[in-house]
Amino acid sequence: MKLVRFGEAGSEKPGVIDRKGRLRDLSDHVHDIAGDQLSRLGEVARLDLDALPVVSEEVRYGPCVGGTGKFICIGLNFADHAAESGMALPEEPVIFAKYTSAICGPNDPILIPRGAEKVDWEVELGLVIGKPAKYVEEDAALDYLAGYCLINDVSERSFQLERAGQWSKGKSSDNFGPVGPWLVTPDEIEDPSALAMWLDVNGERMQAGTTANMVFKPAALISYLSQFFTLRPGDIISTGTPAGVGMGMEPQRFLRAGDVVTLGIDGLGEQRQVCVADG
Amino acid sequence: MKLVRFGEAGSEKPGVIDRKGRLRDLSDHVHDIAGDQLSRLGEVARLDLDALPVVSEEVRYGPCVGGTGKFICIGLNFADHAAESGMALPEEPVIFAKYTSAICGPNDPILIPRGAEKVDWEVELGLVIGKPAKYVEEDAALDYLAGYCLINDVSERSFQLERAGQWSKGKSSDNFGPVGPWLVTPDEIEDPSALAMWLDVNGERMQAGTTANMVFKPAALISYLSQFFTLRPGDIISTGTPAGVGMGMEPQRFLRAGDVVTLGIDGLGEQRQVCVADG
Repeated sequence: MKLVRFGEAGSEKPGVIDRKGRLRDLSDHVHDIAGDQLSRLGEVARLDLDALPVVSEEVRYGPCVGGTGKFICIGLNFADHAAESGMALPEEPVIFAKYTSAICGPNDPILIPRGAEKVDWEVELGLVIGKPAKYVEEDAALDYLAGYCLINDVSERSFQLERAGQWSKGKSSDNFGPVGPWLVTPDEIEDPSALAMWLDVNGERMQAGTTANMVFKPAALISYLSQFFTLRPGDIISTGTPAGVGMGMEPQRFLRAGDVVTLGIDGLGEQRQVCVADG
Repeated sequence: MKLVRFGEAGSEKPGVIDRKGRLRDLSDHVHDIAGDQLSRLGEVARLDLDALPVVSEEVRYGPCVGGTGKFICIGLNFADHAAESGMALPEEPVIFAKYTSAICGPNDPILIPRGAEKVDWEVELGLVIGKPAKYVEEDAALDYLAGYCLINDVSERSFQLERAGQWSKGKSSDNFGPVGPWLVTPDEIEDPSALAMWLDVNGERMQAGTTANMVFKPAALISYLSQFFTLRPGDIISTGTPAGVGMGMEPQRFLRAGDVVTLGIDGLGEQRQVCVADG
């Protein structure tokens, strides 16, 4: 299934994309694609989707999961990206926090914060947790997954790296976390470690990678993180980006108001963001 | 006012402490001490507290604010603590994230995670945001404050510092964030920069400081953070700890199952935590 949340920011309704690509309204069956409702996706899968109301008007897509408590990002999880960042490949996963107030819809604008000079892009595979996970073994870890989604881990490199330490400062500005369009259930993704991923700026290809090059794979990440804290339904793990970010280019290249970012991952849909000056 | 949340974890009710120190039930007037309800504290202040139901049975206190989206910690914000940590005093605030799933009640146990050897304590002054704040000037910043509270920024130093970078990993284990007992409204705190703060382990004084020694003060912190992202109602800013943490001692000293941690800040109440092995 491809689950979505649609409507105005803060009051999204749950929906599902049917086999013909039409949006259908799920709100008679689940309150939201969020929290404990994620444990009810099996029931949703048994619904006759063709009997659900079609939403035919043009709608905004919100983040494909609501009520996220933890937005956990994995740093330097692709060898080529670690190299372009001038950082060593870590011996165990590097984790950093993106504050959840950064989460937005997949096609919402990227807001360039006041004073920002180095806004950058990162296409990433997101894992959405479906049930509480603590001290989970790697071979059982994918049982805790509600699904996969596309994420742009938007980053301001000077806030992240030149403003007194700890990356969250450069990872958490408003709208720095487009999530979606779809929460894709695991049955639709044959091998999460064989997905092509790409990102363009103004139509020019910047990132062209594959999840095959991840150092730490989804099951290993879920197991690892669950040793430190309980993963809860709706938590998002963003698994790192391949090479091709603006910081790694010579000369470096960053986003300006008016730039258009498009990105996608096989089977997880596409995002499109216009960059807009904030405030 | 001293606002509280009481009852079982996850289903706390709002309450207020009256002039005689009795707990009174507020649930007929606000849904929770959380989110947009924080903008209604003015109405609560006009209630006749003596007319509210007294809660006379023994109750658990939950975190004094619910629905926290961002738990923002300020690192190295006391010169004496930066020195004992062997780190330079920062030129601008160091911020790091504590995942909100760490939040617990003020007297809930400290859970020692599996494999943890270096669980440490940090008494801190918490600021709770009352309304959305973005690009706020320092002289207006305290207008965005719902109140103050006591926090123990429990930390696992090997997870934080020896396990592949970024501090969140050692700051976010379950129950690493006791918050409360009270959310104290600003009218009760004459000068937030003149509060004594202390922490004992098994009755032995470990930390004895004052918020007067903070490098970056509450108004400066709120203004600073609001340049990077929108602060939202219920967000917590934990403003750093004075000297006296276990990591800074010679020899170093860390918490073990059975240890009892007590802490307090002038006017903000006290916490008491028993350390328990987790899992």
